[in-house]
Amino acid sequence: MRADLAAAVAAARGGDARAVARLISLVERGGDGLAELAALLAADTGRAEVIGLTGAPGVGKSTTTNELVRALRAAGRRVGVLAVDPSSPFTGGAILGDRVRMQDHATDSGVFIRSMSSRGHLGGLAAATPMAVRVLEAAGCDVVLVETVGVGQAEVEIASLADTTIVLLAPGMGDAIQAVKAGILEVADIFVINKADRDGADVTYRDIQGAIALGERAPGDWRPPVLRTVAARAEGMDDILAALGKHRAWLVEHDVLARRRRERAEVEIGRIALGRLRARLEAVTGDAGLPALAAEVADGAADPYTAAAKLLAALDRRADGDHR
Amino acid sequence: MRADLAAAVAAARGGDARAVARLISLVERGGDGLAELAALLAADTGRAEVIGLTGAPGVGKSTTTNELVRALRAAGRRVGVLAVDPSSPFTGGAILGDRVRMQDHATDSGVFIRSMSSRGHLGGLAAATPMAVRVLEAAGCDVVLVETVGVGQAEVEIASLADTTIVLLAPGMGDAIQAVKAGILEVADIFVINKADRDGADVTYRDIQGAIALGERAPGDWRPPVLRTVAARAEGMDDILAALGKHRAWLVEHDVLARRRRERAEVEIGRIALGRLRARLEAVTGDAGLPALAAEVADGAADPYTAAAKLLAALDRRADGDHR
Repeated sequence: MRADLAAAVAAARGGDARAVARLISLVERGGDGLAELAALLAADTGRAEVIGLTGAPGVGKSTTTNELVRALRAAGRRVGVLAVDPSSPFTGGAILGDRVRMQDHATDSGVFIRSMSSRGHLGGLAAATPMAVRVLEAAGCDVVLVETVGVGQAEVEIASLADTTIVLLAPGMGDAIQAVKAGILEVADIFVINKADRDGADVTYRDIQGAIALGERAPGDWRPPVLRTVAARAEGMDDILAALGKHRAWLVEHDVLARRRRERAEVEIGRIALGRLRARLEAVTGDAGLPALAAEVADGAADPYTAAAKLLAALDRRADGDHR
Repeated sequence: MRADLAAAVAAARGGDARAVARLISLVERGGDGLAELAALLAADTGRAEVIGLTGAPGVGKSTTTNELVRALRAAGRRVGVLAVDPSSPFTGGAILGDRVRMQDHATDSGVFIRSMSSRGHLGGLAAATPMAVRVLEAAGCDVVLVETVGVGQAEVEIASLADTTIVLLAPGMGDAIQAVKAGILEVADIFVINKADRDGADVTYRDIQGAIALGERAPGDWRPPVLRTVAARAEGMDDILAALGKHRAWLVEHDVLARRRRERAEVEIGRIALGRLRARLEAVTGDAGLPALAAEVADGAADPYTAAAKLLAALDRRADGDHR
C-alpha cells in the first residue's frame, strides 16, 4: 500500500493525469491512507497560487473558470481546477459543467480538472480540499483554481481558504445589501460582475462599490477591485488576470501571503484533529450507552446536554484507561 | 439568569409570542444558557408532530409552507414554523419569505413563525434546531414545520431529522436522476411536485415514480406518495394533509416514530458532545503551539496529519492533568 501510494505520487509528479485523478479520489474518500499521502506530499505544499472562486448559482462560475483556464494557459501557466461541491444533493450543475469544460481542455496536458463532492461527511470536503490542492501542486500546477459550486457557508469557507478569493456576482443577483449580509465582503479580494452586458450591471456595480467604500481600511490595506466580465464571450478575462497579479504582488509585499497560508494550515490541522475526536467519540458510544441515553432524551426524561455530558465522561474514562 | 430563563419558559408555555421569540434567539445564538434551557424544556419534548420540508430554490417552499399553515389552522391545529437557513450567505430569500408569511398569519395567535440563520458556526444550526422545536412544543404547537431554505447537504440533514420529511420538486428541476444522485429518495417520505400546472410536470412525476419503483422495499415499508400541487393557488394542500396523516399512522403502527425520535436524539446528543470537544481543542491550541505547527505545515516542513497528532497529544496531556 505504502509503495503503491509512493508510486502514484511519483507518477503524479511526472504529470500522469490518471495518477492525479486516483490520488484526488483517495483524498475525496478520506480514511486512513490520507496521513501517509500527507507525509508524501508535504514537500509540494505551497508551490501553486491558490485562487478561490465562489458565487451563487447562475452567475456563470463554470463559464468563468473555463475562460480563466484558457487565459492562464495562453499565459503559459499549468493549471489545476478543483470544483468542490460540498453540499449539493439537489443541483446537478457540477457534472454538466465539468463535462463542458472537459471537452474544452481534454487534450491539454497542462490542465487538470477535477470535481469533488460528498454526501457522506459534512465538513469532510473542507478538510480534504487542501490535500487535493497539494496533489495538483505535486503534479506541477502553477495555479490551482478552487471553484465552489454550491451556495452556502461551507462553500464560501472553502473558497476563502485561498491566496486570492474571487467573488462572482451577476446583475440583479448580488446587490450590496445581500453582500454585506453575507459576509462575503470580508472574504472577497476581487469582485467580478459577470454578465455585465445585462440590465442592472451598473446598479450592481454601484452597490458593491458603495459597500466596499463603507468598509474600514487602513492605509496599505487591499481594496477589492470590481471588474466587469462577459465570460460567455470571453470578455474581461485579462482584467481578472491583471487583478490576480496585482493582488499577488500586494500579498507578497505586505507579507500577507505567508500569514494566509499559516492560517489555512491552522484551519486544516484543526479540522483533522476534530475529525479524530469525532472518531473517538463514535468509538465510545457503545460503552456510554448512547441508545439508552437517546431514548431518555426522546421521551423527555432527560435533556440532551446532560446526555452529552455522560457521553463525554465515558470518553474521558476510556482515555484515562488507554492513556492515549 | 436561571430565574429569568424559567420565567421566559413559563411565559412561552402560556403562548407568549415574545417569550417564544426570545428563547429561539437564545437557541440560535448558542452558548452556555442552552444547557439550562434544555433542562427546563426536556419535559416538552415529543409533543408535536415534526414535519421537515426541503427542496431546491424556486420550487415554492415558502408558498407551500404558507398554504400548509393555513390548511393546518383550518383543521384546528396550532402550528410552529422554523425556517432554517444554515448556510446562506448569498440568498436573501428567507427574509422576504418570512415577511410575506408574517403578514398572512401575524394576527393569528395559533401560529409561531421564526427563521433561524447562522454565519458563525457551521453545524451549529443543525444542533440548535431540535431545541428550537422544543421551544415551539412548549408553546403548545401540535405541528412544527421545519423548512430548510438552502439547498445543501446540511439542509437535507436538518429537514430529514423530522417525523415526516416532505421533498418539494418543480417541473424541470427535479428529474429522477438528480433525485437519485441526491440521496433524497432515502430521506423523502412524501414527494410534492409543486407548480404542477406547468409544462414538464408529467415527466417529473413519471421520473420520480420510476426512481421510487427502483428502490428496494420490504412488505410493510412506506412507499413515498408523489403529490401534485399548485401552492400559489392553494391547490393540493388537502392532499398533503391526507398524506401526512397516512404517514403518521404508518409511523405509529410500525413503531417507526419512536425509533426515528431516538435516532434524532442520538444525532442531537452527538452534536452537542462534539461541540464540547471542539471547545476543548480550541482551549489547548496555545499549549500545543498551533501557530508554530501551522507555519511548519505551510512551509512544507511538516504534514498536517502529524501536526494534528501533536495537537491531540497536547489535549490528552491536559486531560490527564485535569482529570476532567
